[in-house]
Amino acid sequence: MTANPADSLPESPEADFPDAEQSPQVDVAALGEMLLGRWADARRKAREVAAMPALHKVEGLTHTEHRERVFGQLKVLVDEGAVHRAFPQEFGGQDDHGANIAGFEELVTADPSLQIKAGVQWGLFGAAVLHLGTEEHHRAWLPAIMSLEVPGAFAMTEIGHGSDVASIATTAAYDPEAQEFVINTPFRAAWKDYLGNAAKDGLAAVVFAQLIVKGVNHGVHAFYVPIRDPQTKECLPGIRSEDDGIKGGLNGIDNGRLAFEDVRVPRTNLLDRYGHVSEDGTYTSPIASPGRRFFTMLGTLVQGRVSLDGAAVAASKLALTAAVRYAAERRQFNASSPTEEEVLLDYQRHQRRLLPLIAATYAMGFAHEELLAKFDGVFSGAQDTDEDRQDLETFAAALKPLSTWHALETLQECREACGGSGFMIENRFASLRADLDIYVTFEGDNNVLLQLVAKRLLNDYAKEFRTMSVGALAKFALGQARGMAYKTGLGAVGQFIADSGRAQRSALALRHPDTQRLLLAERVQTMVAQAAQALQGAHRLPQAEAAARFNAHQDELIEAARAHAELLQWEAFTEALEEVRDPGTRQVLTWLRDLFGLTLIEKHLAWHLMNGRLSMQRGRTIGEYINRLLAKLRPHAIDLVDAFGYRDEHLRATIATGIEGRRQAEAAEYYRELRASGRAPVSEKALSKK
Amino acid sequence: MTANPADSLPESPEADFPDAEQSPQVDVAALGEMLLGRWADARRKAREVAAMPALHKVEGLTHTEHRERVFGQLKVLVDEGAVHRAFPQEFGGQDDHGANIAGFEELVTADPSLQIKAGVQWGLFGAAVLHLGTEEHHRAWLPAIMSLEVPGAFAMTEIGHGSDVASIATTAAYDPEAQEFVINTPFRAAWKDYLGNAAKDGLAAVVFAQLIVKGVNHGVHAFYVPIRDPQTKECLPGIRSEDDGIKGGLNGIDNGRLAFEDVRVPRTNLLDRYGHVSEDGTYTSPIASPGRRFFTMLGTLVQGRVSLDGAAVAASKLALTAAVRYAAERRQFNASSPTEEEVLLDYQRHQRRLLPLIAATYAMGFAHEELLAKFDGVFSGAQDTDEDRQDLETFAAALKPLSTWHALETLQECREACGGSGFMIENRFASLRADLDIYVTFEGDNNVLLQLVAKRLLNDYAKEFRTMSVGALAKFALGQARGMAYKTGLGAVGQFIADSGRAQRSALALRHPDTQRLLLAERVQTMVAQAAQALQGAHRLPQAEAAARFNAHQDELIEAARAHAELLQWEAFTEALEEVRDPGTRQVLTWLRDLFGLTLIEKHLAWHLMNGRLSMQRGRTIGEYINRLLAKLRPHAIDLVDAFGYRDEHLRATIATGIEGRRQAEAAEYYRELRASGRAPVSEKALSKK
Repeated sequence: MTANPADSLPESPEADFPDAEQSPQVDVAALGEMLLGRWADARRKAREVAAMPALHKVEGLTHTEHRERVFGQLKVLVDEGAVHRAFPQEFGGQDDHGANIAGFEELVTADPSLQIKAGVQWGLFGAAVLHLGTEEHHRAWLPAIMSLEVPGAFAMTEIGHGSDVASIATTAAYDPEAQEFVINTPFRAAWKDYLGNAAKDGLAAVVFAQLIVKGVNHGVHAFYVPIRDPQTKECLPGIRSEDDGIKGGLNGIDNGRLAFEDVRVPRTNLLDRYGHVSEDGTYTSPIASPGRRFFTMLGTLVQGRVSLDGAAVAASKLALTAAVRYAAERRQFNASSPTEEEVLLDYQRHQRRLLPLIAATYAMGFAHEELLAKFDGVFSGAQDTDEDRQDLETFAAALKPLSTWHALETLQECREACGGSGFMIENRFASLRADLDIYVTFEGDNNVLLQLVAKRLLNDYAKEFRTMSVGALAKFALGQARGMAYKTGLGAVGQFIADSGRAQRSALALRHPDTQRLLLAERVQTMVAQAAQALQGAHRLPQAEAAARFNAHQDELIEAARAHAELLQWEAFTEALEEVRDPGTRQVLTWLRDLFGLTLIEKHLAWHLMNGRLSMQRGRTIGEYINRLLAKLRPHAIDLVDAFGYRDEHLRATIATGIEGRRQAEAAEYYRELRASGRAPVSEKALSKK
Repeated sequence: MTANPADSLPESPEADFPDAEQSPQVDVAALGEMLLGRWADARRKAREVAAMPALHKVEGLTHTEHRERVFGQLKVLVDEGAVHRAFPQEFGGQDDHGANIAGFEELVTADPSLQIKAGVQWGLFGAAVLHLGTEEHHRAWLPAIMSLEVPGAFAMTEIGHGSDVASIATTAAYDPEAQEFVINTPFRAAWKDYLGNAAKDGLAAVVFAQLIVKGVNHGVHAFYVPIRDPQTKECLPGIRSEDDGIKGGLNGIDNGRLAFEDVRVPRTNLLDRYGHVSEDGTYTSPIASPGRRFFTMLGTLVQGRVSLDGAAVAASKLALTAAVRYAAERRQFNASSPTEEEVLLDYQRHQRRLLPLIAATYAMGFAHEELLAKFDGVFSGAQDTDEDRQDLETFAAALKPLSTWHALETLQECREACGGSGFMIENRFASLRADLDIYVTFEGDNNVLLQLVAKRLLNDYAKEFRTMSVGALAKFALGQARGMAYKTGLGAVGQFIADSGRAQRSALALRHPDTQRLLLAERVQTMVAQAAQALQGAHRLPQAEAAARFNAHQDELIEAARAHAELLQWEAFTEALEEVRDPGTRQVLTWLRDLFGLTLIEKHLAWHLMNGRLSMQRGRTIGEYINRLLAKLRPHAIDLVDAFGYRDEHLRATIATGIEGRRQAEAAEYYRELRASGRAPVSEKALSKK
């Protein structure tokens, strides 16, 4: 490794972040409006609904009481028109997919159980009928699904196969005599499990099963299956149900298991948009390849991942608002004054704990807005090519893992930053954390999703860079330079890197966005290129050897996917900055973006050093840069969380109400009066010093 | 930075970890015996008690039901003689402090609420009477405390002052006329809060208050105060109590708040071992300095931190046992074979997620055993100098933060590694995680504790290295080389570094313990030295400026303390290895220790690179080293968790019972019969390939 030219250009953090003559001000109202994004109206309305006390989680209920309450709340959502936006206009919906998800995400502030139970009913069960069924199915079932007359389960996951849906074992065999499908659970591992609405409330289910016609298995298809008698609520013949019981969170949902023994449904109950069986048992599909058909059918379910990404960001915002308000009031230890204690948020450590989480939450919020726009483009049909759908899948698979893990980290750090108060359920950190825990493994396990992203990156790499050596990559220029990250492919990354030569890099300070982009982008590209080289020719090996080769690089590949997602988030933040007109807001958000970028670079610093992307000298300045950014951002912390726009009805955290400040004022007044009275005791310590 | 000589000595991971001709075997029984440690008998007895179904947590109870159950369980502990080992023999105890803590720690496997409620009663309330009171107090109150006739609260923490005990505002003023102390809560922030036994069960409390005699405040002292009528359970006059209600976990404990309005107790209710008030109101103390007196009194409470350290290790062991058993059975995705799916634990990522946690748990277990020996030495009086007490404080303050954070990380990673099953409460990860959450902020907030460690390191540095430049430090040799980490001071670290020259370092492979020790030790020393240099002269500045200077390095100091704790853990593991006689066990544990060491070095790799401790070339080999260690340890994973010695009655996790293997066998048998029958469907994919 030769010395980096940057070594000859020492830069000081001071030069990069000059103290402004006047501290900039954030325009909180305008920033708040911007954060509401393109579907601001839907978010505003959903926040009004979520502010209704009837929808709020009540802590300490038994799981059966909590289930009752949430089921009742779903009816409120129907009455408020809060959950029908994605459905067709002819059934009272609005055909508005982006607004639907935006509004849905905000429900997490009322009760995550309510959100996910609504997601099961309308986002999974209803959406499966909508997207996998035909108009006939819509007319037959959507009205009762939308009105909650028929609560339903989404029976895809089996005990034996979590994220590996293609391997499910439930069968639906066509009986041409009766023109019926016969659904069976062949063994215990094939029981459907973890299904919301399955333990108690569900009257029907969309059941995923291997479709077998004339001895041929056509792969996984979905069937509409009544499971309980609407009057008696008893399971129908052949249906067995078990209760999953208590879970780590989301106990307002009646998750359970389902099994089927010779359960017969009419031929027309196959949701046959992508695969049709005629009366005589002829299978036809608009998609010839069974593999592509499977991914197309599953692809209609991407909205689950999209909405979890947004809900995770919303929950992070709630936690940070409460924790930052408390940290800006709470005092502990009198380090700098004999009489007055230090405000928590003035401690460097406390800043290090909370402010980077705010920066990441902003980045993830902006990235989510991009994802939602992509989703809306595909589902509205406005931009709905195969490539668009693949990009959407990859984009969602990249963002959802990082934001859901981030939410857990944020909730936990906020809870710890509030000490014992943070553990009290009335302050909600622990409650939200328990409920959001499952977000990291459902709707696609996070590690599995990142592996999907890695495979996509490897494919892109194979397509675009097949003929180049790793070292030669940086020399190629392919197209435009900015905004490339929204194209989730690798091509634009390579192009940007090519545009930015080493000479340019060495002249730019770390605070310069091009430097940050270059470091983040080169890391993605190099990691993918290295993995691709290591895997070269693996597809020609026997399956077991190819798998072993792939497995030996699994961890690197997942890290490459994570690096890619981080770049997407950073790009989204940087793009958003360009829309900010108010100079003060723009300055503060630029610092916040820099904090996000530098925190990422610090996290992967060893990589940047070992790969010659950053000199030792420059590497050693990063910690100090970050500390200076923290000090600059400290005065704006309250503004930055206020801009999230959540009111007391959404926060519902005692410590976010100013109670700590009032207690301190009372104590200060007591001591003031005591001193004035002349009855204040003298400390032994003070006496012994005399 | 000049190139490191190590660059000229390329080493390959293969050279460091040659494949053994035969795979070594772990002697699980012998290793299990070793892990039980010096107080094996107490642990074994406590595990028998913890295996009793009557003591097990029942999930889904309301918090009031859970409280009832736990209070009843405390009586079982009394009957089983499980909680009196630390008390004097004359009252039926055993004066055995180490065994007491060892046994106490194991109770976490039954129900953490039971453990902590027992800790409140006998480890805090009872221990305060024991350690802060005199023989007269022991005779008056210990029997009823030990028998649970008088449940009590430990009323130290106030709402306004969490970790900052010296600043509490409750007052106890001496009234010489009545020969009574008058206890008052002057304002809301001075309410005692988060106290177990305060909301419901407590009949008395040890109350910490500023002792005021004749207009002089002698600082924080402890008073025995009856709070409820034993018959009616109503609060006594002047006592107010509030219920903390539901918490993020530990809901079997009735945490609550207490306030006092002119509550009078006899003069003899002052627990006056360290501070006495005579009838006429003369204050005397065996410790002249008010500061040292305060720390001596609080120092008697170190056992809380010691026992949380051990309990956190025990909980980590439970989680890893369940998750590794499941990972060794569960199969997902058929990457390497068309018919059989891959076992989770064969995936590199899964190994990366779980095996380093096993390694860290071993290290923390061994370190805890050292801590417990130190604790027993001090509390038995065998090694009870001021220096011993200070070392014990520092040792506990270093280990408790890392092990309690580690437990949360382990519980969460295990829960995620088990997917949806991990979220089901029946598998206990989520339940234990919720209960252990508070361990990271109670009995000393983890960040505050690490700061205490950092201050100790700075003091040691000032004492021993005051006159040297940072660069010169490595040249000094002071004494013996090994085992220095148990002396929590810095001196031995400097000595070891001095003994190990650069020439030696460059010749040693990363797997060599001296290399690992050198890297970990140099990091501690350098970080402390750098902080000390930056803070030089700060104590001569005005308070506010000195505080600002300190604050600007707070994050580094806490990281230095963490590095110190990591070194202690690594040393403990390495010392323990020397006791292992069986060659196979020793080989596997050596790999595990190397995995622990290399994982730490990888985590801080940027630091080692930037400080010239590791060459780029060598840095680049670490990931591959670790991957090879993972593959070597994979076959021993089950043995390593079996050696923890927890039985099904302790695990109580459905997925750890072999249920997954039985389901797979059933499924495999179904498919075998189906193929044999000739009725197995052909896949469309297979047909279309023809």
